Amino acid sequence: MSNTEYPTVKDLTLEEKASLTSGQDAWHLQSVEGKGIPGYMITDGPHGLRKADSSTGNVDVNQSVPATCFPPAAGMASSWDPDLVDRVGQAMAEECIQEKVAVILGPGVNIKRNPLGGRCFEFWSEDPYLAGHEAVGIVTGVQSKGVGTSLKHFAVNNQETNRMHVSARVGQRALREIYLPAFEHIVKAAQPWTVMCAYNRVNGVHAAQDSWLLTKVLRDEWGFKGIVMSDWGADHDRVASLNAGLNLEMPPSFTDDQVVKAVQDGRLSENQLNRMAQGMIDLVNKTRPAMQTQGYKYDVEAHNQVARQAALESMVLLKNEGGILPVKQGESVAVIGEFARTPRYQGGGSSHITPTRITSFLDAAADRGQVVDFAPGFTLDEAEQDQSLTNQALQAASKADKVLLFMGLPEEAESEGFDRKTLDIPAKQIELLEAISGVNPNVSVILSNGSVVSLTPWRDQARGIIEAWLLGQNGGQALADVIYGDVSPSGKLAQTIPMDLYDDPSMVNWPGEEGHVDYGEGIYVGYRYYDTFHKEVAYPFGFGLSYSEFKIDDIRALPDGRGGVRVTARVSNLSDVDGAQVVQVYVAPRSHRVSRPVHELKGFRRVFLKAGQSAEVVIDLDSRAFAYWSEAYGDWHVEKGTYGIQVGSSSRDISAQVDLDLPGDGKRLPLNEWSTLREWEDDPVGGPIVQKMKAEGEAGRLPKLDDADDSPASFLAGMPINSFSVLVGEGGTRMTSFLLDEYARQTGVQ
Amino acid sequence: MSNTEYPTVKDLTLEEKASLTSGQDAWHLQSVEGKGIPGYMITDGPHGLRKADSSTGNVDVNQSVPATCFPPAAGMASSWDPDLVDRVGQAMAEECIQEKVAVILGPGVNIKRNPLGGRCFEFWSEDPYLAGHEAVGIVTGVQSKGVGTSLKHFAVNNQETNRMHVSARVGQRALREIYLPAFEHIVKAAQPWTVMCAYNRVNGVHAAQDSWLLTKVLRDEWGFKGIVMSDWGADHDRVASLNAGLNLEMPPSFTDDQVVKAVQDGRLSENQLNRMAQGMIDLVNKTRPAMQTQGYKYDVEAHNQVARQAALESMVLLKNEGGILPVKQGESVAVIGEFARTPRYQGGGSSHITPTRITSFLDAAADRGQVVDFAPGFTLDEAEQDQSLTNQALQAASKADKVLLFMGLPEEAESEGFDRKTLDIPAKQIELLEAISGVNPNVSVILSNGSVVSLTPWRDQARGIIEAWLLGQNGGQALADVIYGDVSPSGKLAQTIPMDLYDDPSMVNWPGEEGHVDYGEGIYVGYRYYDTFHKEVAYPFGFGLSYSEFKIDDIRALPDGRGGVRVTARVSNLSDVDGAQVVQVYVAPRSHRVSRPVHELKGFRRVFLKAGQSAEVVIDLDSRAFAYWSEAYGDWHVEKGTYGIQVGSSSRDISAQVDLDLPGDGKRLPLNEWSTLREWEDDPVGGPIVQKMKAEGEAGRLPKLDDADDSPASFLAGMPINSFSVLVGEGGTRMTSFLLDEYARQTGVQ
Repeated sequence: MSNTEYPTVKDLTLEEKASLTSGQDAWHLQSVEGKGIPGYMITDGPHGLRKADSSTGNVDVNQSVPATCFPPAAGMASSWDPDLVDRVGQAMAEECIQEKVAVILGPGVNIKRNPLGGRCFEFWSEDPYLAGHEAVGIVTGVQSKGVGTSLKHFAVNNQETNRMHVSARVGQRALREIYLPAFEHIVKAAQPWTVMCAYNRVNGVHAAQDSWLLTKVLRDEWGFKGIVMSDWGADHDRVASLNAGLNLEMPPSFTDDQVVKAVQDGRLSENQLNRMAQGMIDLVNKTRPAMQTQGYKYDVEAHNQVARQAALESMVLLKNEGGILPVKQGESVAVIGEFARTPRYQGGGSSHITPTRITSFLDAAADRGQVVDFAPGFTLDEAEQDQSLTNQALQAASKADKVLLFMGLPEEAESEGFDRKTLDIPAKQIELLEAISGVNPNVSVILSNGSVVSLTPWRDQARGIIEAWLLGQNGGQALADVIYGDVSPSGKLAQTIPMDLYDDPSMVNWPGEEGHVDYGEGIYVGYRYYDTFHKEVAYPFGFGLSYSEFKIDDIRALPDGRGGVRVTARVSNLSDVDGAQVVQVYVAPRSHRVSRPVHELKGFRRVFLKAGQSAEVVIDLDSRAFAYWSEAYGDWHVEKGTYGIQVGSSSRDISAQVDLDLPGDGKRLPLNEWSTLREWEDDPVGGPIVQKMKAEGEAGRLPKLDDADDSPASFLAGMPINSFSVLVGEGGTRMTSFLLDEYARQTGVQ
Repeated sequence: MSNTEYPTVKDLTLEEKASLTSGQDAWHLQSVEGKGIPGYMITDGPHGLRKADSSTGNVDVNQSVPATCFPPAAGMASSWDPDLVDRVGQAMAEECIQEKVAVILGPGVNIKRNPLGGRCFEFWSEDPYLAGHEAVGIVTGVQSKGVGTSLKHFAVNNQETNRMHVSARVGQRALREIYLPAFEHIVKAAQPWTVMCAYNRVNGVHAAQDSWLLTKVLRDEWGFKGIVMSDWGADHDRVASLNAGLNLEMPPSFTDDQVVKAVQDGRLSENQLNRMAQGMIDLVNKTRPAMQTQGYKYDVEAHNQVARQAALESMVLLKNEGGILPVKQGESVAVIGEFARTPRYQGGGSSHITPTRITSFLDAAADRGQVVDFAPGFTLDEAEQDQSLTNQALQAASKADKVLLFMGLPEEAESEGFDRKTLDIPAKQIELLEAISGVNPNVSVILSNGSVVSLTPWRDQARGIIEAWLLGQNGGQALADVIYGDVSPSGKLAQTIPMDLYDDPSMVNWPGEEGHVDYGEGIYVGYRYYDTFHKEVAYPFGFGLSYSEFKIDDIRALPDGRGGVRVTARVSNLSDVDGAQVVQVYVAPRSHRVSRPVHELKGFRRVFLKAGQSAEVVIDLDSRAFAYWSEAYGDWHVEKGTYGIQVGSSSRDISAQVDLDLPGDGKRLPLNEWSTLREWEDDPVGGPIVQKMKAEGEAGRLPKLDDADDSPASFLAGMPINSFSVLVGEGGTRMTSFLLDEYARQTGVQ
């Protein structure tokens, strides 16, 4: 069958169309025998290919064919480098082509609402702009090779506790400004071939059955052209889901007969089933060229090097007192901590990959001929500390010039399927640090963890700290590159590290109860909360040190005439060390009628500069950079006013701010009886009407507002006009009626 | 007309019945000529009688006949003394009888959700138990004299910003546990003759039109027998309000014809109008005896002394380093601050009273022959500091042994009608304190303010701090009593004083926008937040120092056999100074399936003890003391478990905790497809069914759960059984069906 002869739903029976809307088995699309529709494989991502050894029904997440394990999103997010992410995506697609996988499930762009969230290691950021503008690289990279992606989990899948049923009760503004924009950007910019719905409910409706999410927002508003599949086990009612706009149930529940019956009795229109099934055919057709490629073999070592580069950019240097890092030539080094030998490089659950190879830091150090004195220090299980391990570690530490202490979360501590209970790393590791810093103060800690851990209890006892997140299979080489000074670290935090878990504003509602979780903090997630409400943090969003020294200056911001702003800045490497800096642009509304975060990330650019080099960066902000989601308008709204354009290297290190007056979008709500007197006075139509009413009052033809009340003017100005009617005395409806009637006469608005 | 011949609605025409459901004018009920229904006066409260000089239409809040100005609720709430509040209520009623006022509007028991709230000075507490159990004294005291009260503002009236229209979006649990219980307790314990509805909307419905609030909860659930009136101007639709259960529109909008027409066309049933109108007749009848009393004159001086006692108990001694207070005989004293001469003793708005007399601290000091060196220090207006006032103050301070510095909020800073923007007192006062403490470290600050002010910026510069709130007209004498040591201070904070405004969890949603305000912090208001989430505070809820020294011990707690607990403790005055202590009982659930505050106030007793005396206190907790509001049950629920009974003298000074195992109320939700496997296993019916299913699996007659998935057991246990159906492989609906069918067979629950 040639490309031009692909079938459409017109060629299929009702039963065949129904069959296309669920899988053939747990990891394959449904084929239609004799109609030229193959049953391609689709399987997890998102940071590498997880192709189960057994291809049917198997949900054992730890048995899969070897694939390159790239750093999970929590690591790669620190790169602020969409091009890197795109290269990783391309490599993953090549592995899919070899393994005949048509769609790799990812990226997962849910917001890290609370650092306890069990899948935070798979997600990108607390900031939707950053999450969307990094993760889009997975979609562009993978799909550039003819393999599909699945943007997930749509939407508001921010916790594991009761994840199959919990109702995320979240306001429209927080949805639009926090929980949806990463999806929105990727859909608009890169058209992922598939979207995966979330397990949870959103404001009471299961995501799989939410026509507002799957049809109105995703397709009608954003223009999504692909198919929506269920998360595995998230589809509880095929008819309701098909009606809502879910194309594909995974894995199959073998209930096609219910779909057929629903069409026959009118609960599901055949048109809607046609749309859903045609989407499946279109998906298969898009993946045919790649799936029909024969004998393709990807370059395992080349991909291992992509993983190394990704790991390099994923590390964040948090502390470097007295330039303790990198290790200098001739310095004797004690390497302590089991993680140096047995790296923790990915998280648990559906994303768990069998890597093609593994390089530990000890391997990498040996590769480059570095002699180190290693002591495991502790075991990765929950056993109590073995004093002999402590003694061995102290002995190594006391003889060395410097100590590299590898600490972190053991694999059991974080996974899909459950939320963490604490941000703390195991106490025995901290006790070991205390003991070691007592015999050798030159300690650098290298952290392995998928989501934020608390640093405040122990950070004073380390002179250097590298937050290495989870670095994928080649993190050992990357760590050696950074620790021995071949590469300057350049990662920037995609997530605030708070002083204390209880500082997080979602804690009062975490993780919910009795089937729901209230998103009471609204839009104030992450730095939006910490920065707006003046809370001390351990390390701010966007923060990361370097061996290089950078300056950002010559900052300018000019309206582009289309509602946006072009920001330019010069970034200079003042040091004799090559390195990369991330120029970050935050927008800070200076006055606002609604609550606004003190600033929000609206642009960034990673720039690599050789020693002594400078470069100009240009970052364009579109009008959305200045908008908030207005419940009153049911739409985005840019207020007229002054906006600070802040350019810097973290949310708390702003090099300079340029204030711009923007005209706004000119939207104006019609006045009504609940509009306040001030709103009437400020309105171009309402203002003259109020003046006329006052004149009528002076002339004795209407109640005189000023005489009727001696309260302060501001008190009255803030009241809706409807409330004056009864305050102004006998027959008092006249004032409200006068205003409303005049307004209706002049505008036609009743 | 004798008492037995009072009219009923049967005696009235439709028009007359309609007329009774709104006022005659701004401050009078509607009379019915010839039918024996007089038009009695009703007017503000709540901390004294505010009878307008002009009795119609006048809303000027500052012109009224003289009346005793008792301390506003913010002060009296610190007494933790319902008997005192009752005596104040009796005195207010006597003034009503003299002035022919049938109902005095108050108490206002809205929760101090956020300290910026403009009417916090009129409200009682951040804690609903305390608010209800103190304010009830106003109702019992006033009504014992045959005068009515109006419990207000029902409900969720916690801010002034957009107060006429803002929709408080608040969950059922926060409503039931935080915003309604003070009303509930007072209705059940004291049957106020009237309730006043709030201005605002609650979850989208104007309180005046909210049949859930006014009928279902207030009348059907709590058994309220009186009438509901609108706040002044809160009734925007007479027909909707009457249908919802609002008896009385105030002030009148002269729209009785609309009510008549609604009955005629069926939008309002005549039965409902009859109920509403009969309530008005019943109210009038209840007030007749007092209103028919002739020539009554209250004892102005006796009431002034009640005001003095109330003021005495309203003060909270926050700090007393080295026993700087009281002033000892022979010590020379500089009194600085305009407030010592011009006391700030009440707030602005509808509660503003013209006092019968005023005693400043300077007056009171002079009365008792104390010679003090006074300097005003600053002016109460917003003018910049006059250096000559500073100089004069410094001169006085430098010559004295001790300085009493009177600081506080000027009258313009807080009032009904607007919310505050800051917790700070004027900078010029703090600068003066800094200057004075530089020349004389023995400074005691006496604070006058209606709602919490920030102390952390300056408290280290004062050795003594008295939070004197607003003390009413005789605060001067009371302050002298305490400052010169005749009476030991005994007030306890009814409200946490935070370190910083931004620590308040409601700040992220304060004061709302676009017509709504989200109560995102849920039940975590005040100390429920600060104590549960380990936040440092300046002074905790329940805190207050004394000149006496107390010990609380011998604490016992025993179940009373009716779901409640009897708590006993011994409190001893170990010092040679007479004084009062408040024994506070907090309940601390030790394990819980929903989020619970670390502890909640559920009982208290104020005990006056002469030097060296001891007393046993007995405090009974009913079963509600252990309950939370369950959305799942739609009812209160007491879980089986261990509950700590904490007895102490503040929320952070617990003398001892007794742990009690309580059996709970035995409620159990029926299992369904969304119940987790763990819930099934834990259920007395479900558990055996799961065991049977597993046996069937072993026998090969059902899918074997264990074999189907190698994930950790806790992962599965937390999943709803509905989600296994598709995970267990082909034909997988059988497992869920098996469980549900068996359960239905055994329980009859489908």
